[in-house]
Amino acid sequence: MHLMPLWRETESRGNRRCVGGGGASGWLGFILVFSPIALVQPPQLGWFAGAPWLATLRKRLLGRAWILAIQGDPIFVVKGQFLLNSRCVQGLASEGPCQNLTCFPPDIRCFGTCDQGVVPVPLFWNESIVEQPVTFPKLQPRYSAFAQDFISASARRQQPFFLYYASHHTHYPQFGSQEYTGQSLRGPFGDALLEFDGSVGHLLQALRDAGVEKNTLVFFTADNGPETMRMSRGGSSGLLKCGKGTTYEGGMREPAVAYWPGHIAPGVTHELASTLDVLPTVAALAGVPLPNVTLDGYDLSPVLFGNGKSPRQTMFYYPPAPSELLGVFAVRYKKYKAHFFTQGAFHSGTTPDADCHGTALLTAHEPPLLFDLDSDPAENYNLLQGSSVAPDLLAVLKEVWLQKAQFDQQMAFGESQPGRGLEPAWEPCCSPQCQPKPSCCSCASP
Amino acid sequence: MHLMPLWRETESRGNRRCVGGGGASGWLGFILVFSPIALVQPPQLGWFAGAPWLATLRKRLLGRAWILAIQGDPIFVVKGQFLLNSRCVQGLASEGPCQNLTCFPPDIRCFGTCDQGVVPVPLFWNESIVEQPVTFPKLQPRYSAFAQDFISASARRQQPFFLYYASHHTHYPQFGSQEYTGQSLRGPFGDALLEFDGSVGHLLQALRDAGVEKNTLVFFTADNGPETMRMSRGGSSGLLKCGKGTTYEGGMREPAVAYWPGHIAPGVTHELASTLDVLPTVAALAGVPLPNVTLDGYDLSPVLFGNGKSPRQTMFYYPPAPSELLGVFAVRYKKYKAHFFTQGAFHSGTTPDADCHGTALLTAHEPPLLFDLDSDPAENYNLLQGSSVAPDLLAVLKEVWLQKAQFDQQMAFGESQPGRGLEPAWEPCCSPQCQPKPSCCSCASP
Repeated sequence: MHLMPLWRETESRGNRRCVGGGGASGWLGFILVFSPIALVQPPQLGWFAGAPWLATLRKRLLGRAWILAIQGDPIFVVKGQFLLNSRCVQGLASEGPCQNLTCFPPDIRCFGTCDQGVVPVPLFWNESIVEQPVTFPKLQPRYSAFAQDFISASARRQQPFFLYYASHHTHYPQFGSQEYTGQSLRGPFGDALLEFDGSVGHLLQALRDAGVEKNTLVFFTADNGPETMRMSRGGSSGLLKCGKGTTYEGGMREPAVAYWPGHIAPGVTHELASTLDVLPTVAALAGVPLPNVTLDGYDLSPVLFGNGKSPRQTMFYYPPAPSELLGVFAVRYKKYKAHFFTQGAFHSGTTPDADCHGTALLTAHEPPLLFDLDSDPAENYNLLQGSSVAPDLLAVLKEVWLQKAQFDQQMAFGESQPGRGLEPAWEPCCSPQCQPKPSCCSCASP
Repeated sequence: MHLMPLWRETESRGNRRCVGGGGASGWLGFILVFSPIALVQPPQLGWFAGAPWLATLRKRLLGRAWILAIQGDPIFVVKGQFLLNSRCVQGLASEGPCQNLTCFPPDIRCFGTCDQGVVPVPLFWNESIVEQPVTFPKLQPRYSAFAQDFISASARRQQPFFLYYASHHTHYPQFGSQEYTGQSLRGPFGDALLEFDGSVGHLLQALRDAGVEKNTLVFFTADNGPETMRMSRGGSSGLLKCGKGTTYEGGMREPAVAYWPGHIAPGVTHELASTLDVLPTVAALAGVPLPNVTLDGYDLSPVLFGNGKSPRQTMFYYPPAPSELLGVFAVRYKKYKAHFFTQGAFHSGTTPDADCHGTALLTAHEPPLLFDLDSDPAENYNLLQGSSVAPDLLAVLKEVWLQKAQFDQQMAFGESQPGRGLEPAWEPCCSPQCQPKPSCCSCASP
């Protein structure tokens, strides 16, 4: 059995992209998948952290494999706790400085100012920098070629593989190769999305060509919601409220599909799911024990194989900068969602909904705002209007109060990695001894 | 060749539903279809009015076949100009008084106050009232049974048929039969939508069973956007701005699909289309001449059959109550849309966007608000911000000014039918001589 999680980067900043190998070892659409942005920043940590069955994989992919980042600041925590033993096969630190780079051929400059005063965005091969800055118009084809080679080589060796394919698309600033440039009515955002779509097609074709399609679980999802402050380059959450940086549905609900011909029946499920569930699910499929720590995920195999319901009944929503003083901002319990705190985000600006904007300050709600997300996915109609409360809603209210209190009580906050501050010496530089940094860190591909 | 237009009722009020017969004679999804609510109220008039090739059809379906209505008032203009010669086979005057009626079995009352002081909603067979009030939980099955019988009988007689199937779903108050009640997570709205979906399935199966599937053009669309003032019973326009009663995209852009296996290639088109184009398109397909009047529609055959582009380059948006003094409120020209006037609507209430609400008064924009609907379908980012205008946008601006002026100059306003006022004597009553009206107009099915 092979595993191929696909990740579409919507807006989280500074994650390094990894396409890694080794390890253990029909489409089902999910309506309700949540990416808890703060808890799992970088989101990939939510998938794999602490899994002993990923022992070899851990050293290759986990721990030091990603660049830790926070929203809104270009921070490269590359060395120290998060880089040693890295085996990130290819990596792209997104949103490095790009204002003088080419995002689309032949010479369309990356849009916006991007990040300033840091090293140009590098492309890694394992721990080596292949080029710096990366050549955006060639990036996705390189990823696709690597992934195709990796799949065919693994299949030839009859070696179980784990391919984690986390695309940079459609993060701002969007980029694309010649094949997709100008091909979408939707502009640069659409071109980037087209290229991502094409790359998924290449991956699936590679599975077919290698004869392993029916032995590979492919799972696709994404991280947080659209960064509408980027306007027409920021995506849209459709009818869901707000976007990135908020704990409204538009900030955290994601598209997701699972594909495993012959194993997963095609269809659509409304069962609750989270990226936190990937680790327990994959561990169960691979037949390995879970680590002896408290995990927030559930084994969703029954949902995947259509023979049971999701064990997940709750989802806890943290803001981008969680605090132990406030705890979770919102709790989903079955079809209900209670907001104990709401707050806008500058990332969710430029929409007509003022609740989404950065100027919408932190507001406590007691009793919470309560929504029925089945009939009101847009979170427009608070069920607790007026002075009287129906008995069934009162019971829901007591349950979400209890769920929040229990969750907050059990949650142990780790040390903030971004809180350690910026450390320019940790920024990856292809010419480590050069001066003056960061501008001297510039090397063409061999 | 047979024709089967399907109509999903979203929110326009007071249209009588018709399933009529006789007359002249794979799915393609449309992204851009517009229903000009005011011009074609009832919207069906936009399809058929004045077509000589529909000569027999006119007498059966057109003219007196529909109840003319305006938004917001339950007006039954049944007799006089619009009823004589009616051959409306089955008809439902939507949103008659329903506050004491059953909308879902076994005895779930219709939600809301509905309309007051008028006759209960009747069910017609040709010009006869079958029952009054209609039994909502049995309505869609009756429609389906009629349509299936009609299709199979026409096919047996090898008679070309025209079946216009205009469902009441998902108009407020939603209703449904036993089979669909409580089957949707989405509540009554979802149940009604499920029932509509099921009825389309029945129709297509009837075509297959009768062996005429490959000889029938099926076209599905709907009228105006969601009536969000109904809250979770009002639908959603997703990322499109506002809903019913406005000239924003959420008020007028509709889903549409065309189906004709072996003739229409499956796919998705971004070509511009309008319900105004159905008449010229159908006339071209049937090989009959168009009437000698100015039509606002185009023959979209090239789009249907995938061998050409849409001749439509413009779309003109009227508000629900148009005036010659102001003319069209907005003009779409290629990918651009210019708003010369904007106005909210109470029908578009309860969303977070204040522009949509009834309290958003009529506002003139000179220069107009200008949007690129390809990259900004949500109409968030006015291209004419700031003091300077790019030359290409200035050219667009001059073009839309000209288009508006030409259109307004050529448009002749007819007499307002709703403007004639309410006439209780025109209300359909199964017992015409009874007293006191309207409450005495009550007859069970034979």
